[in-house]
Amino acid sequence: MTRLFRMAVAVLAFSASSLSLAEENFTLRLAQTWGPNSPILGETVQHMADMAETMSNGRLKIRIDASNKHKAPFGIFDMVRNGQYDMGHTASYYYKGTIPNAMYFTTVPFGMTAPEQYAWFYYGDGMELMQKVYEPFGLLSFPGGNTGNQMGGWFRKEIESVDDLKGLKMRTPGFAGEVMSELGVAVTNLPPGELYTALERNTIDALEWVGPALDFPMGFHQIAKYYYSGWQEPGAEVQFLVNQKTWNKLPADLQEILRVAMRTAAYDMYIQSTHESGVAWANMKEEYPDVTHKVFPPEVIEALRAATNKLLEQEAEKDELAREIINSQRGYLKQVRQWTNISDKAYLDSVAGE
Amino acid sequence: MTRLFRMAVAVLAFSASSLSLAEENFTLRLAQTWGPNSPILGETVQHMADMAETMSNGRLKIRIDASNKHKAPFGIFDMVRNGQYDMGHTASYYYKGTIPNAMYFTTVPFGMTAPEQYAWFYYGDGMELMQKVYEPFGLLSFPGGNTGNQMGGWFRKEIESVDDLKGLKMRTPGFAGEVMSELGVAVTNLPPGELYTALERNTIDALEWVGPALDFPMGFHQIAKYYYSGWQEPGAEVQFLVNQKTWNKLPADLQEILRVAMRTAAYDMYIQSTHESGVAWANMKEEYPDVTHKVFPPEVIEALRAATNKLLEQEAEKDELAREIINSQRGYLKQVRQWTNISDKAYLDSVAGE
Repeated sequence: MTRLFRMAVAVLAFSASSLSLAEENFTLRLAQTWGPNSPILGETVQHMADMAETMSNGRLKIRIDASNKHKAPFGIFDMVRNGQYDMGHTASYYYKGTIPNAMYFTTVPFGMTAPEQYAWFYYGDGMELMQKVYEPFGLLSFPGGNTGNQMGGWFRKEIESVDDLKGLKMRTPGFAGEVMSELGVAVTNLPPGELYTALERNTIDALEWVGPALDFPMGFHQIAKYYYSGWQEPGAEVQFLVNQKTWNKLPADLQEILRVAMRTAAYDMYIQSTHESGVAWANMKEEYPDVTHKVFPPEVIEALRAATNKLLEQEAEKDELAREIINSQRGYLKQVRQWTNISDKAYLDSVAGE
Repeated sequence: MTRLFRMAVAVLAFSASSLSLAEENFTLRLAQTWGPNSPILGETVQHMADMAETMSNGRLKIRIDASNKHKAPFGIFDMVRNGQYDMGHTASYYYKGTIPNAMYFTTVPFGMTAPEQYAWFYYGDGMELMQKVYEPFGLLSFPGGNTGNQMGGWFRKEIESVDDLKGLKMRTPGFAGEVMSELGVAVTNLPPGELYTALERNTIDALEWVGPALDFPMGFHQIAKYYYSGWQEPGAEVQFLVNQKTWNKLPADLQEILRVAMRTAAYDMYIQSTHESGVAWANMKEEYPDVTHKVFPPEVIEALRAATNKLLEQEAEKDELAREIINSQRGYLKQVRQWTNISDKAYLDSVAGE
């Protein structure tokens, strides 16, 4: 070989190794709880994938399967844990049976609003505690978008006292359902597709879903005219799950691209929810002027709070990590709420005639 | 040349071109209004630069100059416009003299809270209107972080009526200062370093700064005991400026990396402000129990609103684009606030005894 040829080969070898480093591509498979074309929730996942792909110049692609494909909307945790999928988008409180301590990272009745909760996640102990819960399963968990403050639900009759709740047939799942049960509500769970008919036929007297943006298309306001402000999910955060082995395979730049894309998509979902809720509530009031906004009377709020605290205390008794999370959230809420009260709340109160 | 050699050269040429494409590096120079080691504001800029550098694997570096370096804290707009810097981090309402319509993109008295305003920026007409204002100057502008709801300020004496404001010597700059002037306040502006002494020596009777996190280190609470909730900056957003020519030089992946890094850093600043305000307010109340939180009486709020509306109407009369922005913000606020009122406000009211 000539000297020139040896040089060329050496440079080529160097270039090739740099090239392979620079151009290694990854396609991650993501399963979402939501169906195809799911507004807000599904859009958030697609938005995250788009940002990651563009920022990585196509080196990081995320292939999204909706529930019609994987057929397991509430099996996301397992499918990401066992490596069937690299990532998931779901709500941690769907897995109370398998991983009970996960539920605190979605929302807690009488808990934090979205900005308060993000502050706890990112500047308090939230992320660390969440990782403590997910690490044993080989998973990383990240905030995946906030619905904002959820409404308390649609009621056919006004609720004027705790007595009015006794025997009321209501669809309200999860922890909030347990709290309602404590007050004598006959809690039922039904698939989303059956809710409208159940309400129309008096199979249920009331239900809670999300908020104006997602409630409006469901049509509940055509039947139940009282729309109550919420207490049960003051800032419901869905989540991204990432299989730890997948994460470890990614180079540092793609890890950061993925992390930042998830973080931005989550914040954006909160802001999109704020926007869409405003639009939907305005439309609802215009098209259905007999829809009436209500707040639960103080007596009802107090009873719901007492029941919530009782159930949280029971959870804390059963499990040390549950206690740690509950105490961390309580302590943080106590501090940050004082600030919310003298800032946003005081301001909103002062201009309430708007 | 042997065939093998020709092949090697061909591959090498291909590799080299791919390599140069993959490895083109950019170092952007950014000037910030803030000094070195500036808490929250300066941290936000560094945070953005760190994310961009890691996501780009070092291909996009941002070199930050603080005000001690460029000596022109309120000259950021000009320095980025004329290409002396590629980017800036500042507050748009500092440039009322040069580009009066920019001020609406920071905050407006009695305007939107941070989440409401982000919704207007990203899902309403905010970004488009902001670009309409900056485009003639060859600049792109992006939200750069929110302080959250700012406090109304520190007062030596209680304000119980509009009469109590007449002749009051107060430091409150910008548009809020003009509103206060309408009510007879003797508005003065002083450099930050002179504020404490001015308050101590009765040169001024009151001042507003930001909120607990940035007010606490200034020590005003040691002199003026009444801390009022705000009306003048319900969600003050600072901004990133990018020279359009710099932006155009970046490949699409680095543009997206920069855009997403700025967007995330901005949201994070809002959340960090929420956190730090909570911590600082708790500390202040513990260390200085005689600090008293107050809200302005309805009479004062009404007078401030009327003066704000009068001044905004004057601005709208003078300039068509000002009118377009003011009307867009008003219309959006009217819609989104209805949602805020039945969600976060109703919830915060219901648990106010917390």
